[in-house]
Amino acid sequence: MTQQQTPTKITNKLLSEEFLNKFDTFLFDCDGVLWLGTILLPSIRETLDMLTSLGKQLIFVTNNSTKSRKAYTKKFESFGIKVTEDQIFTSGYASAVYVRDFLKLQPGKDKIWGFGEAGVREELTLMGFETLGCDDPGLNQPFDASTSPFLVNGLDKDVKCVVAGLDHNVNYHRLAITLQYLQQPDVEFVGTNVDSTFPQKGYTFPGAGSMVESVAFSSGRRPAYCGKPNKNMLNTIVSAFNLDRSKCCMVGDRLNTDIRFGHEGELGGTLLVLTGIETEERALEVTSEHPRPAYYVEKLGDLYEYTH
Amino acid sequence: MTQQQTPTKITNKLLSEEFLNKFDTFLFDCDGVLWLGTILLPSIRETLDMLTSLGKQLIFVTNNSTKSRKAYTKKFESFGIKVTEDQIFTSGYASAVYVRDFLKLQPGKDKIWGFGEAGVREELTLMGFETLGCDDPGLNQPFDASTSPFLVNGLDKDVKCVVAGLDHNVNYHRLAITLQYLQQPDVEFVGTNVDSTFPQKGYTFPGAGSMVESVAFSSGRRPAYCGKPNKNMLNTIVSAFNLDRSKCCMVGDRLNTDIRFGHEGELGGTLLVLTGIETEERALEVTSEHPRPAYYVEKLGDLYEYTH
Repeated sequence: MTQQQTPTKITNKLLSEEFLNKFDTFLFDCDGVLWLGTILLPSIRETLDMLTSLGKQLIFVTNNSTKSRKAYTKKFESFGIKVTEDQIFTSGYASAVYVRDFLKLQPGKDKIWGFGEAGVREELTLMGFETLGCDDPGLNQPFDASTSPFLVNGLDKDVKCVVAGLDHNVNYHRLAITLQYLQQPDVEFVGTNVDSTFPQKGYTFPGAGSMVESVAFSSGRRPAYCGKPNKNMLNTIVSAFNLDRSKCCMVGDRLNTDIRFGHEGELGGTLLVLTGIETEERALEVTSEHPRPAYYVEKLGDLYEYTH
Repeated sequence: MTQQQTPTKITNKLLSEEFLNKFDTFLFDCDGVLWLGTILLPSIRETLDMLTSLGKQLIFVTNNSTKSRKAYTKKFESFGIKVTEDQIFTSGYASAVYVRDFLKLQPGKDKIWGFGEAGVREELTLMGFETLGCDDPGLNQPFDASTSPFLVNGLDKDVKCVVAGLDHNVNYHRLAITLQYLQQPDVEFVGTNVDSTFPQKGYTFPGAGSMVESVAFSSGRRPAYCGKPNKNMLNTIVSAFNLDRSKCCMVGDRLNTDIRFGHEGELGGTLLVLTGIETEERALEVTSEHPRPAYYVEKLGDLYEYTH
């Protein structure tokens, strides 16, 4: 496979144009690729404009489940980048699609218990699922089994699935009630994404996976993970846009999620950028732990800078 | 081994006396054996008094790390049972002993980062270790990497170990700072106990292991667990009292912690009580998942009731 050949570093105009000509569609990870937290990386607007003017299709794929797709368009807007909601795929949205299309739960009838932030609730709600938990203020109260409003009247029998992801408001109340639902054998268990950590302001902080694995351990169950690098997410995207995988390139800053996602999804190519957590040394490393990218570049903006 | 023979059910005076004559020392799990939460089980005071009057040595061994040994004596007192601090071993105390005697960290010099409740901090402090984290009110504030007092001045370079256990005040702040210390390769990682859950008021709630495993997953590290069924705890007890293991019996309500603890620690016997989470069917089951007890009894108080 292309991805297992020695990665090509894009270092000049010729290589950049050759690379761009190979693909019709680019799937971008966001944080570490387009921006770092609240800082837009250099020449990103120009690169995206150039790709659009070349007739390329742009799709944005993020494991961040804390924001809904609608909220994500606002983040793009804040950087002066115009994208529409249907160009964005979050792991929260991927989880909602999985619940409806794979688990075949019924919007309007089956309910979901969410352990995660507003993004998870909003995507599930938009799909028609009544969603309990998540950012319900009652869960911010200290947990007491005798008074918790989520316990005293019994569990909701219509809850058929737990969707768990990153929650900065994680507390014992949320963990305890999530466990009660997971102890029901007929309740499904979905994790938004397996990331153990995420980078922020030079630190590495606990990611969605570290929360999902906590309730997985207490319940003795394994979740179905939906975000990158899981194929469910890519299958959803490919079918939504009727894409030709061979003409798609996944662009990301993480070998074990983004590049694996493109590789295992059998896309035509992968591009690693070095503005996130990976180094050139890691990009070139041959290991069984993650695939190598087909291409890599110091920063995404180089694609524009080399050709202008 | 005795424990793998068919378990003997103690159902009358003769069996009870035969059982009691075999042992000089009884190690008791507490919750589920002596009491259920705040309710003392029937004939417990009488049974313990009888054992004392027969010259038996009584030791109490609990995986509850939230209370110190001193606080535990008060819990016994509240039930009208008089025990001294040195009869009690908690997983928090076992962790403190492990940090000092096995990891050879130096009280008065090396510091500990605690992710757990007051019991962990108190035991480490009593042993002379300055302990950061735990129930520090600063950790109750919402986490912000730019303002967290545990980050803005850098990590404490004298911290040489993380001790993690059950914390009902678990939040993102605690998880994030604990992860920062675990990212330091020279910082050791100790878990008080591996229990995935604990029973309370008819429910099963997340236990210490579900918190420890969260930071284990985010850090990619494995902890050294100290509580039952780990041998470290039993070794500490045996050496503190210079016990003859063959004359000791472990009494508990959990096959995979208490009975395993006695079995793997090669004690003379084990007694399962059915007042906690196990059933008679489970006690008799032959499985590779846990050892069988040598003896079992409906409730601990039967030992007194049969003989009086």
